[in-house]
Amino acid sequence: VASILILGAGVMGSAIAVPAADNGHSVRLVGTPLDAEIIAKLKRPGGLHPKLDAALPAGVEPLAIEELGPAHFAQADAIVVGVSSRGLDWAAGLLSEHLDRPCPVAFVTKGLAVEQAGVKTYADTVPARVGNLSAFVGIGGPCIARELANRWPTASVYASADASATDALIRLMQTDYYRLSPSGDAVGVEACAALKNFYAIGVSAMQTRFPDTGRASGAHAKNPLAALFNQAAREMAALCEALGGKRETAFDLAGMGDLHVTVGGGRNSRLGHGLGQGRRVSEVLGAELAGETVEGADTARALAVWLRSGSGMDAKALPLAHAIIDAVLDDRPFDFDFRRIGGPAVAA
Amino acid sequence: VASILILGAGVMGSAIAVPAADNGHSVRLVGTPLDAEIIAKLKRPGGLHPKLDAALPAGVEPLAIEELGPAHFAQADAIVVGVSSRGLDWAAGLLSEHLDRPCPVAFVTKGLAVEQAGVKTYADTVPARVGNLSAFVGIGGPCIARELANRWPTASVYASADASATDALIRLMQTDYYRLSPSGDAVGVEACAALKNFYAIGVSAMQTRFPDTGRASGAHAKNPLAALFNQAAREMAALCEALGGKRETAFDLAGMGDLHVTVGGGRNSRLGHGLGQGRRVSEVLGAELAGETVEGADTARALAVWLRSGSGMDAKALPLAHAIIDAVLDDRPFDFDFRRIGGPAVAA
Repeated sequence: VASILILGAGVMGSAIAVPAADNGHSVRLVGTPLDAEIIAKLKRPGGLHPKLDAALPAGVEPLAIEELGPAHFAQADAIVVGVSSRGLDWAAGLLSEHLDRPCPVAFVTKGLAVEQAGVKTYADTVPARVGNLSAFVGIGGPCIARELANRWPTASVYASADASATDALIRLMQTDYYRLSPSGDAVGVEACAALKNFYAIGVSAMQTRFPDTGRASGAHAKNPLAALFNQAAREMAALCEALGGKRETAFDLAGMGDLHVTVGGGRNSRLGHGLGQGRRVSEVLGAELAGETVEGADTARALAVWLRSGSGMDAKALPLAHAIIDAVLDDRPFDFDFRRIGGPAVAA
Repeated sequence: VASILILGAGVMGSAIAVPAADNGHSVRLVGTPLDAEIIAKLKRPGGLHPKLDAALPAGVEPLAIEELGPAHFAQADAIVVGVSSRGLDWAAGLLSEHLDRPCPVAFVTKGLAVEQAGVKTYADTVPARVGNLSAFVGIGGPCIARELANRWPTASVYASADASATDALIRLMQTDYYRLSPSGDAVGVEACAALKNFYAIGVSAMQTRFPDTGRASGAHAKNPLAALFNQAAREMAALCEALGGKRETAFDLAGMGDLHVTVGGGRNSRLGHGLGQGRRVSEVLGAELAGETVEGADTARALAVWLRSGSGMDAKALPLAHAIIDAVLDDRPFDFDFRRIGGPAVAA
């Protein structure tokens, strides 16, 4: 039995507690200052997680941030950071302050860090911020939190430059329904995990742009959706490589696989649906997405800093990226021009 | 203006006539002996294609098989074979008989050829059967015929060992809505184009196996679908390589891209939906698919000959392929065991 400390009790941090507890481990689930209400509900007997609509296994001990102490860090065999990208600074600060011996830390958090008119992945930036992080393990793959908490099967990738840390975490976390592949490409997994939110905006626009009025209500043309799904994977491969990862990582769980579920639903996809209807980002963010964080839009802003100011990448190779950036940064209609698709196949 | 001869007036042969005619070419669309009724309808003024529900452009001349003569072959700058896999022998016979000078031939037809307890792609077998085939060009990618005929945008790959033939065909066929990538990997494109029908059966089963009763009627869990979509791409890459193609081709238009639309609808997908409900192949083929050809099931039979008798491939690397083959060949329930997913990531 291991001791696993999870930082962040939102949907993803809480969901990943389920396979950990199902493996018999002792799991502490720590709420951020914004999670106080969630922790209070989980502490009641039979309490449901208000956003997952599920109870957590008995092996999960919910902890309010005020209850977190040095002993929890000292006991942890592994730490999982489960906050959203806007919570990363909180988590990194906590780890820097309390982690007083080497410990592997796995990150579900996805995003890109802007540094001096460039962008980097968390695999590049976080280890420098946390002294005792003995191994950075990036987690990617198709994993809607509510479905994981319901134990519906899925697959994910755990990636680190430290293969023994990856293997150890996979032994702790893998269950019959949560299937894990190891990878050495942490930078690529982190890059793709952030990029897929961004690309899901453009791909999902194809779910509303070409209504198929000859079919059932709500039906849409499927060729344009698949063509942009494929284009997104090609561009993710190019960006992944430019950010220091491996191209192939884009064509696996953290890229293509996670893009598949992200286009299937969620906030990035809903923003895309609005764009497909010809509406502007400001309209959609002011209406059905008012008050919500759309991580793909944050990623667009980070990428724009880099792609518009000297990434050295040929804009012709990234037509979908530029169309999404133009829509998000300049509040322009999303006008993807299919004539910009073409060029050599992946295996030319 | 070029002269393009299309063999087969079913949905795909007819749809691909649309971009060819939109480019101003003279297009002859020849029906197979089974297409007599289609050709008769197309010959009427304003006649609609009965299966596409669309009229074809004025530049398309429908021809009954009895009208086809040596002059049509002599005039053709390029020939496109648009029949289904069961029509391939007819088309190859016609080409062998009438093609009396070298001419490039492009194939939309998808399938695998069984040869001496092995399988080969049409890129391997067809050139040996047609003497004057100057270049074999394989066509792959997400392309629902009815959507192409409606000029909804999509992307495809044209692949041949003869790069100049590929480039020439792309110049003839590419339009603003039909975006084409060249590839040198004809074997890989042909392998993936056949395999995606087969894998769509297993992936589509995930659209019915895990109903999400907490959501809208008909909603299903999305993680298992994405996990098997990803698994299918991984296995296509391994099989593509074993058949003599490049792994990367599986992660592009002919593999992943076409798998995306094939899971979105059609006969292979409907067979998968039945399997996901726990029904057997014989039940589904005897009910909602009675009388229909399911190309992915034909591919399962071809693959089984090879994978069950000495392909040398590790069955553990192909759990989804074996689960589909067991369901189709042995009429067993489709019991995909997620514990068989895992192992190293694509970029390990």
